[in-house]
Formats: sequence, structure tokens, C-alpha cells
Amino acid sequence: MSILFLADLDTEELGRWADALRASLPGEAILTWTGDAASAPATEVLAGVTVAIVANPPPGRLARLPALRLVQSAWAGVDGLLADPALPPVPLARLVDPQLAADMAEAVLGHVMALHRQMPAYRAQQARGAWQPLAQPRMAERRVGVLGMGEMGRASAALLARTGFDVIGWSRRPRAPLPGVAMASGAQGLANVLGAAQILVNLLPLTAQTHGLLGAGAFARMPRGAGLVNAGRGGHVVVPDLLAALDAGQIGHAVLDVFTTEPLPASDPLWRRDDVTITPHVAAPTDPHSAARAIAANIARWRAGEPLVGLVDRSTGY
Amino acid sequence: MSILFLADLDTEELGRWADALRASLPGEAILTWTGDAASAPATEVLAGVTVAIVANPPPGRLARLPALRLVQSAWAGVDGLLADPALPPVPLARLVDPQLAADMAEAVLGHVMALHRQMPAYRAQQARGAWQPLAQPRMAERRVGVLGMGEMGRASAALLARTGFDVIGWSRRPRAPLPGVAMASGAQGLANVLGAAQILVNLLPLTAQTHGLLGAGAFARMPRGAGLVNAGRGGHVVVPDLLAALDAGQIGHAVLDVFTTEPLPASDPLWRRDDVTITPHVAAPTDPHSAARAIAANIARWRAGEPLVGLVDRSTGY
Repeated sequence: MSILFLADLDTEELGRWADALRASLPGEAILTWTGDAASAPATEVLAGVTVAIVANPPPGRLARLPALRLVQSAWAGVDGLLADPALPPVPLARLVDPQLAADMAEAVLGHVMALHRQMPAYRAQQARGAWQPLAQPRMAERRVGVLGMGEMGRASAALLARTGFDVIGWSRRPRAPLPGVAMASGAQGLANVLGAAQILVNLLPLTAQTHGLLGAGAFARMPRGAGLVNAGRGGHVVVPDLLAALDAGQIGHAVLDVFTTEPLPASDPLWRRDDVTITPHVAAPTDPHSAARAIAANIARWRAGEPLVGLVDRSTGY
Repeated sequence: MSILFLADLDTEELGRWADALRASLPGEAILTWTGDAASAPATEVLAGVTVAIVANPPPGRLARLPALRLVQSAWAGVDGLLADPALPPVPLARLVDPQLAADMAEAVLGHVMALHRQMPAYRAQQARGAWQPLAQPRMAERRVGVLGMGEMGRASAALLARTGFDVIGWSRRPRAPLPGVAMASGAQGLANVLGAAQILVNLLPLTAQTHGLLGAGAFARMPRGAGLVNAGRGGHVVVPDLLAALDAGQIGHAVLDVFTTEPLPASDPLWRRDDVTITPHVAAPTDPHSAARAIAANIARWRAGEPLVGLVDRSTGY
């Protein structure tokens, strides 16, 4: 009966997480393992693990835990985890951390404000010494679409609305209303949001249905010159389609925080585009302390036989 | 008994203002004059003017209105107007327009968010293809100082606080409290705000007391690497001192929307600095429609013998 923190992290980060988990789970036996074969715990130790808390576990490792009964992700996104063909068929919970959602909302507001205030255009003008005021709509006149009404999407949409933007949120299935936010769902709702969004924020989970969603078809539906903020996953964006849409002026500017390969290779041409803002997957870094508290609370819930928060439906992928 | 709109604006803008003023002041005789000698109205026409609504009037022109009883500025700042040595000693009102204050608050939030989220640093990293996450405080941990608790300062401080920042506002004299905003005043209060502000926003009026306020002494008091947003007047900032503070890393980044000479000459070295963001005096452009409504309401107040909104105290300059 022990808990394994199985995390492909560097030594310093592994230590920071282990400290945070031990502080939030006092009295529990918590093992750590990077998944590296050379440092694998003994088979009989692995045989005693009932709960795995995981951060980027190498594929196949969870299958080596015969007594495993719960997998709790340390990340909000579980697309990487679900890609493990040997993932055991036990309950799997993604991280639901209100602090993480609040952090994401801050990042989203920052990028939306930058696009709203036409900062890339003013920067381009500054580079050539051009003093040229641009027409500036007000926040209340700026329609912002938010794709994904999970914890992070809801927190972001709520902050945008509270700040003054005209916000429409989209989710695959209808969701509970959110004050100040228009809600849309389903395929027709998506078409409507894309058609309305002068600035589009992606916070969807990466699933078979959402992979490549932000491609030529979506861009063509958006208002000409629209802004894009991708803080979901790199796999949501079809990069060649985005480049074509930027070249054509259909997308005015894209803020990309996530990429299919991270770190984004230094040779990638995205780095050198004035119409792309790149941030190194920093929109909402998981905070080990708040995450450990959320994880401990979920494990306590599970032990008490209560429903898990963030239980993943493997048929939908989130 | 007529109203003169005395405004050194181009023909198109003069026309837009005249239309807006006539819409808000129906039944009034409204003359327009750019102040250009060649197009001056006849002396007997000027003799009938009791109210002048002014936007950048050339010096000396108001002295040619013998029946003048009220000067209403179309701008919120009256530093240019007060510099006219021949300004008649009649009541002078600056523009107080809630829409203008709301617009300024949007601009301020945009620039503060950009500094808060370290966008200049990420942009520099992008330029060299560097994937390097930076430590990121939360809004609640970010102390923002706002200098000036007039209409625009209050609206900006309130929006920053509502969005989540830790805000302290400063005014020369004590002002009414503002929910969520710590208030400071006087010389000691200014020293405290400068010492605390990781991001400092200037929205002071330009007066003899505030001219050059943002110079070496102020910068030295601020936390190392602090951000500066100047949306007040160019004359508030001692540019050589700012350049020295930027070179020394004492100021991390400056956003400048206003300059002593506007447009900022293309040859000015400020344009070419990565640690300076230049916008062409666009933080809060006066909207002729909302301004005309505010001006009409003020003239109606004055005619009814009620106190003017925005009556300027010439001894303080605002």
C-alpha cells in the first residue's frame, strides 16, 4: 500500500514535487521514480503500489504495477498518458487545480489584451519609426471566443468577461452557464463561435476529435485578420495551415504557447515570424504546491469512496 | 451669444467635432475656427462669443473674444492651454468624460498586463530562438502604483484592482477611497508608492509640480527592474534619466504613449530601443461624441448656475 510518484522530470523538479506531495500527504509512503530502467525500484516494491501520481511517465511503466488501482495525473492534460498503449484499465484522474485555472486565465487575459490593443501592429510601426494611430475598438466591442469550457476555459472566459470583453465560450457538450459569457456547443455552435471570434482562444483538451481542429477550415470561417491564442496543445493547430492563413492575412497574429515538439527547435521558422508570438509553454505551469493539495484531496476522496474530481472518460479523452 | 469651437485640427477632424458638438448642443449657434489668421471670423462675430470650446487653440486667440465668459477644453489635459500667457481670466473647465476614463483604463490594463507577463523578455528570447520559461508572479503578487487619482487614474486603478492586481494609487492631496485600491498622498506617500511599485503607471496632470517628476530620483527609489507606463504627458519624464535607468537595468522596460514633441521624430533613438515600447498617443484618444455630450452637459450646468465639472484651479494647474 504505497504511492508512487512516477515522473520523467529532472532531479531538481522531481525533488520539488516529492517535497510538495509529502507535505500534502503526510503519513503516506511515497516512492519516486523517473521511469528510468536503471533506477527502477525492486519488483516487490512496485508490487505494493496502489496509487500512481504521474507526470510524463514513459510508456509501459504503469503496466509494471500489478496492484495499481488509481492513476492521478499531475498535469491537467492527459493526452500524453492516454497515448500509452499499456495504460492499465484503472480509474484515471486528470489534475483539477483551481490555482492552475486562475493562472491560465491571467495568461489568456494578457495575450488577449495584447491582441486587442494591437500591440504587434504598433511594434511593427515602432520598428520603422512610424507614428500612426490605429482605430481602436473598446473591449465591449471585441468578441472573444474561448474554445473549451473545462476548468481553464471557464476561468479564462469569466475573467475576460469580468474585465469587459464580449465573450462566447464553446464546448463539445452543453455546459452550465457562466455569468457574462454567451455559451455555444456542438458543431453548429463551433461554426458560430469561429465566425464571430475576432480573437480566438483555444483551451480544449487534445483528443481524437480536437486534434488538428485549428486548421484551414476553421481559419477560413473566422473574421479576416482575427487573432489566435493557442494555450491548449500543439496538436490542435495545423501549423502549415496557420502559416498559410497568416501569409494570406486571414489570421492577423497568432500567440502560440504550446507545440507538438517542445522545446520548439531553434531552427523552427515560427520563431522568426513577426506575426507569431512564441512563449515556451508558460501560460499556466503546474504549481507543485497547489497541485499536491488538489491531488491529496482527490486521493482522500477516492479512499472514502467518493467520486473523483477530474475522472477521465477514456471514450472522449478528457 | 454664440459658442466658438476653436481648434487647431485638420479639416476632417474639425468637421467630425463640429458635427458632434452640433448634435449635442441643438439650437446653439456654433462657429468653428482653427485659429488660423487668414480664416478668422469677423471682429463683430468674435465679439458675440461667450463660450469657447477649445482644442489646441493657438496662443493669443482666446484674448480676441471680448465677451468670453467660459472656456471649456475638449481635452482632459489643460497644460497646453495654461501655457497661453494671454489666456483670459474666465472660468476654465477641462474635459471630464467617463468614456475617456474607461478607455484609458483599458489601455493601462493592456500595458500593465504586457509588463506583468514579461512579454518584452519573451520577445527578446523569441528573437534569438531561446526556449526559456521565466518565473512568473501572479497578479495578486504584483504591486502596481498609479500616479494621479483623477478620473483617469481612478478608473485605471479600479480596473487593475478588479482584474486582480495589488494596486496603490497616489495623489497630491488625499482623495476619496476606491474599493480594492490602497491610497497614498503627499510627498511621503509618493516615496512609498515609488518604493513599492513593480509597475508604475503615470496619469498625473502636467503642472509645475509634476513636470520632470519621473526622473533619476524617482527611478532610483523604484524596485530594481521595475516597469514604467507613461500615459500622462511627455513632460513628466526626464528622458535622459530614463535612458540611464534603462541602461543600468534599474527600469526594466518603459511604455511611452506621450512625448514632449509629438509625433515623436523618426530620428529619435527611443524608437529603436528593445526596452521601450512606443505608442503614438493612443492610450485614450478623445471621442468627439462622448466628449460633446460631456461638454454640452457642462455648458448646461454653467448656464443654470450650477458648479462646473472639471473646473481648473489655476494655482495647481488642474
